[in-house]
Amino acid sequence: MCYNFIMKETTRQKLIDATYEEVYSHGYQGAALADILTKAGVHKGSMYHFFGSKKEMALVAIQEKIAERFGTRYRSITDAEGGYLESFFAMLRDDSLRDFSRGCPLANLVQEMSNLDEDFDRVLKEIYAQFRNVLKQIYDAAIRAGEMKTCDTNKLALFSIAVLEGAILSAKASGNPKDYLDSVEMLIEYIEITKRSV
Amino acid sequence: MCYNFIMKETTRQKLIDATYEEVYSHGYQGAALADILTKAGVHKGSMYHFFGSKKEMALVAIQEKIAERFGTRYRSITDAEGGYLESFFAMLRDDSLRDFSRGCPLANLVQEMSNLDEDFDRVLKEIYAQFRNVLKQIYDAAIRAGEMKTCDTNKLALFSIAVLEGAILSAKASGNPKDYLDSVEMLIEYIEITKRSV
Repeated sequence: MCYNFIMKETTRQKLIDATYEEVYSHGYQGAALADILTKAGVHKGSMYHFFGSKKEMALVAIQEKIAERFGTRYRSITDAEGGYLESFFAMLRDDSLRDFSRGCPLANLVQEMSNLDEDFDRVLKEIYAQFRNVLKQIYDAAIRAGEMKTCDTNKLALFSIAVLEGAILSAKASGNPKDYLDSVEMLIEYIEITKRSV
Repeated sequence: MCYNFIMKETTRQKLIDATYEEVYSHGYQGAALADILTKAGVHKGSMYHFFGSKKEMALVAIQEKIAERFGTRYRSITDAEGGYLESFFAMLRDDSLRDFSRGCPLANLVQEMSNLDEDFDRVLKEIYAQFRNVLKQIYDAAIRAGEMKTCDTNKLALFSIAVLEGAILSAKASGNPKDYLDSVEMLIEYIEITKRSV
């Protein structure tokens, strides 16, 4: 029983990982189910034990993998005891965290699918709102710690995501990671000048 | 002869327009050649008089239609005699110019195709660089007219595009055009505070 359970979990995880990678590289429409199954090393019949369709599998993969990505990256900042803005800026400046060739997995899917499919639209709306809420929490924590003046952190989170997504897109378009770094530096300048406590 | 020439031009333009619309709505990979031809009202055989493939037709459509879009929208600002920043800000604030359901046609294609195909990558790099250069020209004109302090207009153009693209993406993700407007307002605040002549 226990062995079967582990096998099932492993097969499911292999499918999730392969789906995420293929969709990230080729887009949802460009990701062929046959390639996903080959990458996962799983037969189509086994897939149907876990997911009813390529679409259902993709939606679950997006939710689990992108949530995991945000979880490890941003929650470590809010879980700390202070230095919220410094940690956040350091994370923004760390271009090793980004894959500029493929871009942002969330933005790619919004661009591709939000206007084409209601189920994708709903899932992507939720993830985008979660992302915005995580950044809002970082700014709220920074205000409570006296690192920033009181401001509309919901709007600042929105603006920060816009810059971040636009910066990754610019670097993907130009092939130059410096375009990401330069854009992010101007976001930091904006926050330092208009929001910092003196 | 003359009539034939006009017919040819019309057929070509119908193909370009239909390709652009289908690619804008469904992405390049999601745009079926059959649907493009139906929309254009052109037979496949006629298409091959003008373009060797769906890909060639899409690349030409992107170049012509996006260049036209930038041309009418941004060049009118640089061609004016002054009020460069005001005209630019007014244009940014005019959300009627944007299709938030489909997003930005340039950004969509960068997200979808830049890492998948060298020809798309090259064409999209060129268009993105042109876009950046048009915004740089607006800021350069504003500096010459004494509306702004001297600054690195190349970097400011990069940042402006990042915000603009990220703002359109946010509105597409949330389904709320106000997310675009709020983001753009913070870009304008950044420029007003850090770059305006006093």
